Amino acid sequence: MENLIIIGSGPAGHTAGIYAGRAMLAPIMFEGNMAGGVSAGGQLTTTNEVENFPGFPNGINGTELMEKMREQSLNSGVKIETKTVDKVDLSSSPFAVYVGDDVYKTKSLIISTGAIAKRLGIKGESEFWQKGISACAICDGALPIFRNKVLGVVGGGDSAIEEADHLSKYASKVYMFVRRDEFRASKVMQQRAFDNEKIEILWNTEIKEAKGENVIKSVVVYDNKNDRDYDLEIGGLFYAIGHTPNTKFLDGQIELDQDGYIITKSGTTQTSVPGVFAAGDVQDKKFRQAITSAGTGCMASMEVEKYLK
Amino acid sequence: MENLIIIGSGPAGHTAGIYAGRAMLAPIMFEGNMAGGVSAGGQLTTTNEVENFPGFPNGINGTELMEKMREQSLNSGVKIETKTVDKVDLSSSPFAVYVGDDVYKTKSLIISTGAIAKRLGIKGESEFWQKGISACAICDGALPIFRNKVLGVVGGGDSAIEEADHLSKYASKVYMFVRRDEFRASKVMQQRAFDNEKIEILWNTEIKEAKGENVIKSVVVYDNKNDRDYDLEIGGLFYAIGHTPNTKFLDGQIELDQDGYIITKSGTTQTSVPGVFAAGDVQDKKFRQAITSAGTGCMASMEVEKYLK
Repeated sequence: MENLIIIGSGPAGHTAGIYAGRAMLAPIMFEGNMAGGVSAGGQLTTTNEVENFPGFPNGINGTELMEKMREQSLNSGVKIETKTVDKVDLSSSPFAVYVGDDVYKTKSLIISTGAIAKRLGIKGESEFWQKGISACAICDGALPIFRNKVLGVVGGGDSAIEEADHLSKYASKVYMFVRRDEFRASKVMQQRAFDNEKIEILWNTEIKEAKGENVIKSVVVYDNKNDRDYDLEIGGLFYAIGHTPNTKFLDGQIELDQDGYIITKSGTTQTSVPGVFAAGDVQDKKFRQAITSAGTGCMASMEVEKYLK
Repeated sequence: MENLIIIGSGPAGHTAGIYAGRAMLAPIMFEGNMAGGVSAGGQLTTTNEVENFPGFPNGINGTELMEKMREQSLNSGVKIETKTVDKVDLSSSPFAVYVGDDVYKTKSLIISTGAIAKRLGIKGESEFWQKGISACAICDGALPIFRNKVLGVVGGGDSAIEEADHLSKYASKVYMFVRRDEFRASKVMQQRAFDNEKIEILWNTEIKEAKGENVIKSVVVYDNKNDRDYDLEIGGLFYAIGHTPNTKFLDGQIELDQDGYIITKSGTTQTSVPGVFAAGDVQDKKFRQAITSAGTGCMASMEVEKYLK
């Protein structure tokens, strides 16, 4: 019988681990084995340079930061298993965690399985991922490679406009590729896009391919109204087509919102099931930063410590 | 006219600065000049070893961590002034910030002035501060110097028992020094202290002096019932007599709770005054960790960016 099992190994999971390990809870972490298609360590392992995690004045490589956190978890007494959790049974306490042929029983659970940015799956995407293609303008927009460049944003929702607006501070111009002839975004956000002189909206467009040499140089744009393709030079392409929280394995046993994110009691990491806590992007579609995730991981661990008493 | 002024320079202030700087808001930070009796950088500058801030597997000196964050703020475009804010006028927007003879006008404000752990002011306190005397069992309890030692906790409230309980995991024994003949703590917490075999409660006691050589070795205990002093050997002394949030300079212009902490709308950093945000320990008496503070600093900055639109 375990005190605590942590599922997920991003900043939230490791910060929870560091705190729980130091609190002598002897936690087990299932860091995942390409869970959700991403390496153990989570989404940060797909970014080259993290400039906004406090404590690293010259930035740090995303994978390196996660290796440091993993080492710190181990140093703190976390037992890390490189396995992906298949399912959980939360119907009674202790909870059951199923991993391959093994079943673990635990008094408490921290879910920090994150969310994965949706991708288009176009030609050239893998090649130029993080070499000009990014899913986070807030994280990557300020990087030198994007300064004074023509950039593109894919998406028509609030966050797409927010990202385009954010990028317009650095870019010489920002194209928005919107599949339909109107935005899905709120009126106030739409107005922001219309008012921004650096933003040009390309209605009825879809991206078919990313091209370049080492880094992205252009995209093939499909004009779905006139059914024609054309090339457009850009120095960066930002996806803002949403995220998918990794909550399927929960199989509806915890209350989720309409987008599949875990609902936590405001100001806490408590889920709808007492003893089950959620931290990081799996419960946050508003801030989704490494540092905010880490903060909630700490909270989860402190709440677990209290819960176990 | 400034976009954003940040008051305070702990993990919350600097994380807010890093994000706001990168978002091109050209923020000004007043880091304070021994504000609240603490160096710029905040409470972490009074701790030797920070082992639980994710990203530093072998721990990092508190002052060093804050120097790194400060450098990162500067690199991100924050203008840092080593001055203490005297007062603010939040009666109308833009807000006025008074610093010595200067008045700054700003569209938004992040307050991250922290809280200061109350001290006893006893003889030997300064000498052995962070050399056996600490105000944070969660932060420092797991440090090697406290392992298998006889430790002491000063205080009789919930957090004192929580700290004693936490320390009992590492200590050979924990004395609780309680000034009266009963706890202020809740019944359930009292029971936790009574049930813990490692905890011995010394009623009607006050600490008069800390003694030692390089590190604390003993305390002079005053038995206020029998009006006598005695020496007691301990290897660590933890204060749990509360914190004082640094909110006096606000002069009642923002809604505070009964303990003087800024009230924020749950899940946000919004205060009762639109355009004024609060991050870190000044609005958190529950978690008060460096990493949770940093997380709320990031949130505040992202909320400011939205607010300014």
